[in-house]
Amino acid sequence: MTDHALFLAAADEILGSRGLTRDPDLIEPWLTDWRGRFHGQAMAMASPASTEELAALVRLCVAHHVPIVPQGGNSGMAGGATPDETGTALLLSLRRLNTIGPVDVEGQKVTCGAGVILQTLHEAAEAAGMRFALTLGGKGSATVGGLIATNAGGTQVLRHGSMGALVLGLEVVTPDGQVFSALTPLKKDNRGFDLKQVFIGSEGTLGIVTAATLKVVPAIARRVVIWAGVADVKTARALLLHCEAMVADGLEGFEILPQASLEAVIDHVPATRPPLESGHPWHVLIEVVSDRSGADGLQERCEAMLEAAFEKDLLDDAVIAANETQAEAFWQIRDSISAAERARGPAVQHDVSVPVEAMPAFIDEAVPRLQQAWLGTEAIAFGHLGDGNVHFHVIAPQGTDGPTWHSGDGKAISRDVHDLVTRWGGSISAEHGIGQLKRDELARLGDPVQLDLMRRIKHALDPNGLLNPGKLI
Amino acid sequence: MTDHALFLAAADEILGSRGLTRDPDLIEPWLTDWRGRFHGQAMAMASPASTEELAALVRLCVAHHVPIVPQGGNSGMAGGATPDETGTALLLSLRRLNTIGPVDVEGQKVTCGAGVILQTLHEAAEAAGMRFALTLGGKGSATVGGLIATNAGGTQVLRHGSMGALVLGLEVVTPDGQVFSALTPLKKDNRGFDLKQVFIGSEGTLGIVTAATLKVVPAIARRVVIWAGVADVKTARALLLHCEAMVADGLEGFEILPQASLEAVIDHVPATRPPLESGHPWHVLIEVVSDRSGADGLQERCEAMLEAAFEKDLLDDAVIAANETQAEAFWQIRDSISAAERARGPAVQHDVSVPVEAMPAFIDEAVPRLQQAWLGTEAIAFGHLGDGNVHFHVIAPQGTDGPTWHSGDGKAISRDVHDLVTRWGGSISAEHGIGQLKRDELARLGDPVQLDLMRRIKHALDPNGLLNPGKLI
Repeated sequence: MTDHALFLAAADEILGSRGLTRDPDLIEPWLTDWRGRFHGQAMAMASPASTEELAALVRLCVAHHVPIVPQGGNSGMAGGATPDETGTALLLSLRRLNTIGPVDVEGQKVTCGAGVILQTLHEAAEAAGMRFALTLGGKGSATVGGLIATNAGGTQVLRHGSMGALVLGLEVVTPDGQVFSALTPLKKDNRGFDLKQVFIGSEGTLGIVTAATLKVVPAIARRVVIWAGVADVKTARALLLHCEAMVADGLEGFEILPQASLEAVIDHVPATRPPLESGHPWHVLIEVVSDRSGADGLQERCEAMLEAAFEKDLLDDAVIAANETQAEAFWQIRDSISAAERARGPAVQHDVSVPVEAMPAFIDEAVPRLQQAWLGTEAIAFGHLGDGNVHFHVIAPQGTDGPTWHSGDGKAISRDVHDLVTRWGGSISAEHGIGQLKRDELARLGDPVQLDLMRRIKHALDPNGLLNPGKLI
Repeated sequence: MTDHALFLAAADEILGSRGLTRDPDLIEPWLTDWRGRFHGQAMAMASPASTEELAALVRLCVAHHVPIVPQGGNSGMAGGATPDETGTALLLSLRRLNTIGPVDVEGQKVTCGAGVILQTLHEAAEAAGMRFALTLGGKGSATVGGLIATNAGGTQVLRHGSMGALVLGLEVVTPDGQVFSALTPLKKDNRGFDLKQVFIGSEGTLGIVTAATLKVVPAIARRVVIWAGVADVKTARALLLHCEAMVADGLEGFEILPQASLEAVIDHVPATRPPLESGHPWHVLIEVVSDRSGADGLQERCEAMLEAAFEKDLLDDAVIAANETQAEAFWQIRDSISAAERARGPAVQHDVSVPVEAMPAFIDEAVPRLQQAWLGTEAIAFGHLGDGNVHFHVIAPQGTDGPTWHSGDGKAISRDVHDLVTRWGGSISAEHGIGQLKRDELARLGDPVQLDLMRRIKHALDPNGLLNPGKLI
């Protein structure tokens, strides 16, 4: 037998027929990334049923020099889970590692496999009267392992942090097939640096997350959702600080969008309508929550917060959602921005962050600068003001041919945006990761010292370069 | 000139006369650790005045193969800043890197040099109406750099986390003399894993912290300090959960101590008296705070919390400190436990953690087990119940000679305690670090996979092994 055949036979031995497939029909759906930007090939797809199976498989891959591309729900935004086109890699699905332990209400935690889907985790937490406080558009497919590997964000980061902040314990298969197990959380542990942190956000290049113990919090007993119109982003930021001071830890979401984004949603998404009567340069969506049961005066506190904001000239108009239906309608507008934009034509999208306090000045500089440099385009910034993270989209001039524009002007525009963000001390990836989409941009713009250190750690843990090659660094 | 002389001449060139000394009188005080357990020698003591000087010095050390022992306030508990006895190492004081930037009240952060003393940082924050929420006994000497290098704990960890949780940005000189600068915090940054985390808690073995941007929080407007008597540790833990449910994020401290510790303090520390009229098996010190100015009903909420606890049989007796003087007196009892113990005779001290929920069962097993195995000893557990971290001290039988006992039975007792903690899935160092004190115990009891990964990262970043040799791993 060839080495290739020997490898497959041995892998089959470890994984069994459910755990290894070479059927192109079964593999094909997983070879293209969610946004359809990247397409690759794989020699086979492995789906181990346990950490032990996976560890044995990794040791086999090392012996046969087979590259491994780990994949969760395949709904990442940066092509981090798509193999290259050589077909030499083994596609590794973690989706069968989908056990979910009992929710520990008292300890506020739950241990689950890397393949557990975010939506399933939400439901398990809810059934126990608790909540897993991270959510995002791809929750129906995104897995715990993928969320950890990319340190994913979302709309609740303001209060609860990104995925990494919710990881209390971690189990990882290392690039040489050992199991690093730190699932039992210790609140205080001073035996050296926190090794878990090396794997969180490493996009499967340093180890394969197999399970995690995650933090859960009490379910929301009541929420108040507010829509406000403001004059500019600077005022929106002042309003944010005002809200933080008045409702402290109850502030769960603070999203901004410009009038143009609101209009695009109203125009292109059926059954949406503007929350306020008149237009405003910028809009703010605020969510304040309480996990205390019973009447704790949340509505009154929010009304007082808005009243004080009016008095300080921090907003021009505002409305509190009268009920859950209206609250959902407000959020639907926010969640429809990207869809509405797609209806308008091609756009390049950037997921960028700058220091929180610099965001108003950054937007004020970046929007006109891009529009002037690229005539006919429209630059739109919206999203998580409280996290210093906006989605900065540049929409092509009307009538542009998408594919041509994306590979030409679109690429150049992205470089301009990333240059600008770097000059502001920001990040070219705030919550989506680097993957293969931004790998070259990271190499071009990243701090050379930081990249050098990251590469050394990569080489130390994965000297053969078998784990998710071509991603991140 | 010899290589040694060449090195010193070149170092002198970089650092100037204030920055380098070979005067034994100046160096001597820094060659013994704070607890007097370790003593070493150094060829010279360097005190660079800037990050750039330090980076140049490190490059020089690499060229001449000179080991470096970084040191902040020299008040660590594990000998991590004490050189070995060969005298080949350069002792590196970070104390001159003591600039402290303006406190950014709006952004809730401050950037300061590694040499800034904790007490100074407290004062700077207070002057701006803010608070740096980590404190510990050695605050008059402990430096920011040392606190980060050891990821130090303290009594406020329950709410605010250990030192690492307060680090927003970091500057580090790497073992090859590069500067990794990530002082400007980004709330969201997904360019790979968080490299800062590799240095936090690495005890100067992977890099030298030169500056940090630290989180500050609004000053406390009001605090309520409670002393309660409870039946056992299990009930204390139930009381903790009850308090967390009722005052949520306001719960700042939750310390436990046994009756014997209280009695030792009353007996040995002048002007202390028991807060409650009668004795109880265990005592709990609770602090609840609010940073909201004005009357927010904190006292009433605490009274309601205690009343409900009585009804649920979670405490036998409790008193709320009537004023700040009484609140201070309650805390003084807690802070005097170690001093009172020293007055009683020799003891071996252990800084251990187990999973938070396991602490009551751990104490219930460990105390009688140790006392039975080592007749005449008295085992005492006290400290941070909410963090799953107690100080577990074993006091020698009356009349024991200290030095003999420490090097014989004392060592064996420590091994027993560490074995037990490991069996409970806990840590042999919760908040003091490993240093040289526990290095062999970590090697003996640590997870081999974890140690292997840590050693690989050490070798990748410091291939010559020049940074703080003989510490941690």
